[in-house]
Amino acid sequence: MTFQRVAIIGLGLLGGSVGLAVKEHLPGIRTSGYDADPATRARAATRGLVGTVCESAADAVRAADLVVLCVPVGAMGAVAAELASALPAAAVVSDVGSSKQGVAKALAEALPGQTIIPAHPVAGTERSGPDAGFSSLFQQRWCILTPPANADPAKVAALAAFWEALGANVELMDAAHHDLVLAVTSHLPHLIAYTIVGTASDLEGVTESEVIKYSAGGFRDFTRIAASDPTMWRDVFLSNKDAVLEMLQRFTEDLTALQRAIRIGDGDQLFGHFERTRAIRRSIIEEGQDDARPDFGRSDHGEG
Amino acid sequence: MTFQRVAIIGLGLLGGSVGLAVKEHLPGIRTSGYDADPATRARAATRGLVGTVCESAADAVRAADLVVLCVPVGAMGAVAAELASALPAAAVVSDVGSSKQGVAKALAEALPGQTIIPAHPVAGTERSGPDAGFSSLFQQRWCILTPPANADPAKVAALAAFWEALGANVELMDAAHHDLVLAVTSHLPHLIAYTIVGTASDLEGVTESEVIKYSAGGFRDFTRIAASDPTMWRDVFLSNKDAVLEMLQRFTEDLTALQRAIRIGDGDQLFGHFERTRAIRRSIIEEGQDDARPDFGRSDHGEG
Repeated sequence: MTFQRVAIIGLGLLGGSVGLAVKEHLPGIRTSGYDADPATRARAATRGLVGTVCESAADAVRAADLVVLCVPVGAMGAVAAELASALPAAAVVSDVGSSKQGVAKALAEALPGQTIIPAHPVAGTERSGPDAGFSSLFQQRWCILTPPANADPAKVAALAAFWEALGANVELMDAAHHDLVLAVTSHLPHLIAYTIVGTASDLEGVTESEVIKYSAGGFRDFTRIAASDPTMWRDVFLSNKDAVLEMLQRFTEDLTALQRAIRIGDGDQLFGHFERTRAIRRSIIEEGQDDARPDFGRSDHGEG
Repeated sequence: MTFQRVAIIGLGLLGGSVGLAVKEHLPGIRTSGYDADPATRARAATRGLVGTVCESAADAVRAADLVVLCVPVGAMGAVAAELASALPAAAVVSDVGSSKQGVAKALAEALPGQTIIPAHPVAGTERSGPDAGFSSLFQQRWCILTPPANADPAKVAALAAFWEALGANVELMDAAHHDLVLAVTSHLPHLIAYTIVGTASDLEGVTESEVIKYSAGGFRDFTRIAASDPTMWRDVFLSNKDAVLEMLQRFTEDLTALQRAIRIGDGDQLFGHFERTRAIRRSIIEEGQDDARPDFGRSDHGEG
């Protein structure tokens, strides 16, 4: 089976990118879409993010065989309930949320009996809204599917093929394991970045203008992530609470150990730690998950 | 006054970039250089990082009117002592170290009576060694001079003009204030990045290959900084201990507050915090201190 009509609910960075990628790579598929914000709907129509921008979630899904929910994870249940009455019984419902156990539960409750195959494309930028999406967002990125144990293999395969057509590599994973892995590769980094940017803006001995001026010393890297969508991230932390708190605990222990090494002047411990973290960067670049050029290939020092 | 003969001690990322920037922007200046590592000296000669690669630090500074020490901050005192006997009395000694109070003290002790004007160009990449430098590293970056209170204004002006010629904006600052500002804009971010990368590699429930695969969720941003030179950073943390520990204390308090908000499910507090950190990113981009393109302008998703 392949999908013929895809409905995209939520037309921000992710929803918009799915729509544009479908248009580019799967031109035979008809797309409809909806966003709760009228201004976003208007921009989506202007940019052609989907073939038809509808006035309700129900209208958008009425003829769909695949529905992709691209709203903050805390809104999944409510959005699913909103479109439930119009949803064709054969349609597959999926999403792009960053945590998977909570979403699976919310969708199963709102749509009893429906085929639900949660998904998470591990891709994004710090931008949000209907102008942020672009068709190549998923190229060379991983998309993790977390089908329930009893999922129809043909439908899982169809969803995998859909994401592969958009440029992603697909991996199947248990939802609980997904939430643990992403807690460390995505959720913890975002929480840390949000924290440090907040810490820097609250200092009394250092002005905000100094923080901005001298941010090229490292701080600016954190501000990119800390510019991500606040609603999306609030929901992620609340919905993946246990795994995030577990990772935070480990991070804090490790930070305390380095703090102590600084306090007692243990240069060998610091050096040993710093030496070991270099290897991970090399592997990430070798696996095509980051830009090999120094400084992410930034152009602002006049090089790129 | 202007400098005619510049000696660069240490030919890694910073020393090499100073040499190449002088060649490009101040072709009238003659440069000599030295590095303790013979392999680095050989590469420096091949790349032409300086006009003359010397076999000792003393040889490199013998005819210099400006000496720029580009070695880890913990090595400044020893390197200064090594070249002291050959140093012309009129030469200005400066450096590029990331902490300034400790360096000022070490240089004053090693070179009594010499004119010492510490400096810190806030620029760099995650690369190190003689192949890492490039002439535009300092373009649009700030260079902070921390002259002692009794410094000759003409010599301070000459050093400022030197850095401006290499493309930097120059700012004068008290050394203690410099160390506080950089503790938050550079040292704390590096320590946090080194920590989180270490935390991620030590998990038993998540494999290192998973961490690498799904790093595009945010983690990869931290690995860039955590790939920086271990010796340099060990020395920075040890030499700017008080300010770093102070910033760490504040960071930990802020992180604990967010951790508690997650634990008790206080979405409003999370949202309020995340909303506020977006503004800083905008300011950094407006001030030309980072790339305005999403994702730092990374090319790896096929866009750039």
